[in-house]
Amino acid sequence: MKLCYKLSIVLFLVFVFQLKAQQVESYKPVTSVSITFYSKVLKEYRKIYIHYPAVDSAYLDRRFPVLYLLDGESHFEMLSQYTDYLSRWDVNVIPKMIVVGIANTKRTRDLTPTESIINYLGQPDTVKNSWMKPSGGNKQFLQFIHEELIPYVDANYNTQPFKIFGGHSFGGLATIHCMLTQPEMFNAYIAISPSFWWDHQYVLKLADKKLKKGAAVNKILFYSDANEGLSDKSTYHTNLLKFDSLLTKRSLIGLTHLYKYYPTETHMTSPMVGYYDALRFIYKDWKE
Amino acid sequence: MKLCYKLSIVLFLVFVFQLKAQQVESYKPVTSVSITFYSKVLKEYRKIYIHYPAVDSAYLDRRFPVLYLLDGESHFEMLSQYTDYLSRWDVNVIPKMIVVGIANTKRTRDLTPTESIINYLGQPDTVKNSWMKPSGGNKQFLQFIHEELIPYVDANYNTQPFKIFGGHSFGGLATIHCMLTQPEMFNAYIAISPSFWWDHQYVLKLADKKLKKGAAVNKILFYSDANEGLSDKSTYHTNLLKFDSLLTKRSLIGLTHLYKYYPTETHMTSPMVGYYDALRFIYKDWKE
Repeated sequence: MKLCYKLSIVLFLVFVFQLKAQQVESYKPVTSVSITFYSKVLKEYRKIYIHYPAVDSAYLDRRFPVLYLLDGESHFEMLSQYTDYLSRWDVNVIPKMIVVGIANTKRTRDLTPTESIINYLGQPDTVKNSWMKPSGGNKQFLQFIHEELIPYVDANYNTQPFKIFGGHSFGGLATIHCMLTQPEMFNAYIAISPSFWWDHQYVLKLADKKLKKGAAVNKILFYSDANEGLSDKSTYHTNLLKFDSLLTKRSLIGLTHLYKYYPTETHMTSPMVGYYDALRFIYKDWKE
Repeated sequence: MKLCYKLSIVLFLVFVFQLKAQQVESYKPVTSVSITFYSKVLKEYRKIYIHYPAVDSAYLDRRFPVLYLLDGESHFEMLSQYTDYLSRWDVNVIPKMIVVGIANTKRTRDLTPTESIINYLGQPDTVKNSWMKPSGGNKQFLQFIHEELIPYVDANYNTQPFKIFGGHSFGGLATIHCMLTQPEMFNAYIAISPSFWWDHQYVLKLADKKLKKGAAVNKILFYSDANEGLSDKSTYHTNLLKFDSLLTKRSLIGLTHLYKYYPTETHMTSPMVGYYDALRFIYKDWKE
């Protein structure tokens, strides 16, 4: 395309078309970086994308909340654009924030809480090289975020203590698993279409056990699902209803939560509306 | 920030922190360009942003529909990200498309259909250097798009004939004005919170005159408004209701239209949800 584009510009100048391009330049300076480093916890190289908000030169010491985002390669650009736009001076409904996108290596391993070969229809997946293998490494993955990634970001960027953890599908399962097992890590959690079906509803049962009636949670939590239950006859939607009912009935102290059901969205379009609604919900009472 | 970032990386390598960055690079290659050229119609230099979808090398001759977008400096990145994401192979609810963002020079002049100093509350704005001056140049601006911009894009990119025209606020007024006065220019129109209040509802009255009962329109049209009528007591919302009622009652032939009211969105957040809903609506029956 690039060469084609240049050629066409040349042809265009030669044949003197109606409009003459006076200046062609890249759209904008790069504001995001991709960083690769070695994780001692995971014993492998990991890639991280970091988007830092544009800062007025008069406020270089300003500090920002950080959104840690799973499936970085899929949703990092989306969240960079969302946070940039919603924090513009003339939009101004959320604060400017740093977005840290974590790219996957072995996705199923990192985002699932237990080892399991039971698929979303409740059947064992016995294929030798099943996509479900390996699994159950979420605890180590959260340790990597807690002990290596967050300290790195805090050491290298102007961060505020407020941290959001966002994920979709297995990523949504991982953010809720994190809230249940390591609640000190983040202040707000986003779970778009979380895969509660994993291992006979392991995380749903864990929530039932951990979130006792009247317990202090002091978190903000957004969760949603789309047409998954409609399209594949799985328990996707009923799992979300159970989770929502559990949180609502137990009157948990300090838990601000919102559930959104998007029956006209698919599993893959729902991050676009879900992340938008989640950001608006987390900052619904925010004033600069 | 960039220098600060580099310094921090250096310090970080010196002091041997937990994580060592092995490689730091810009997030992705540039896929959008900014082009400046001289318009003979408008007798001034204009800046255009063009986003071209990533193309598989096996399909370099593939052709794409084009979204022409007003207020390019505000919404070009948003629509580039929306169209990229929604057309991904694993999301795939709209086709890949080219986004052409038109940056403003004299916004009120270009996007308003008539010369007027009547503000949105129906009062004359008599300030000498009023932001409302100059106004009424939309006809010439559409001529620039029709005679100069579209031929340029068609000559330089692999375009399909299908064209969408999107605008917000005065931009929404301009897209509807275009549909009413030069319907041959585009196949689909998006008007997010159109400023129908302009010049005693000039465009609303024009719609009433032009769209006769049973007339053939053969267009796709999305329009929306947000909390404007609630927050400023203007006729914003009632104008949209009138326009929607007019289109609905006249049984126009071939006009596929959708109206969305977003009472929890502001005038500036509504493009984020409106453009999303508009793209999904325009391509609701699309299958690759």
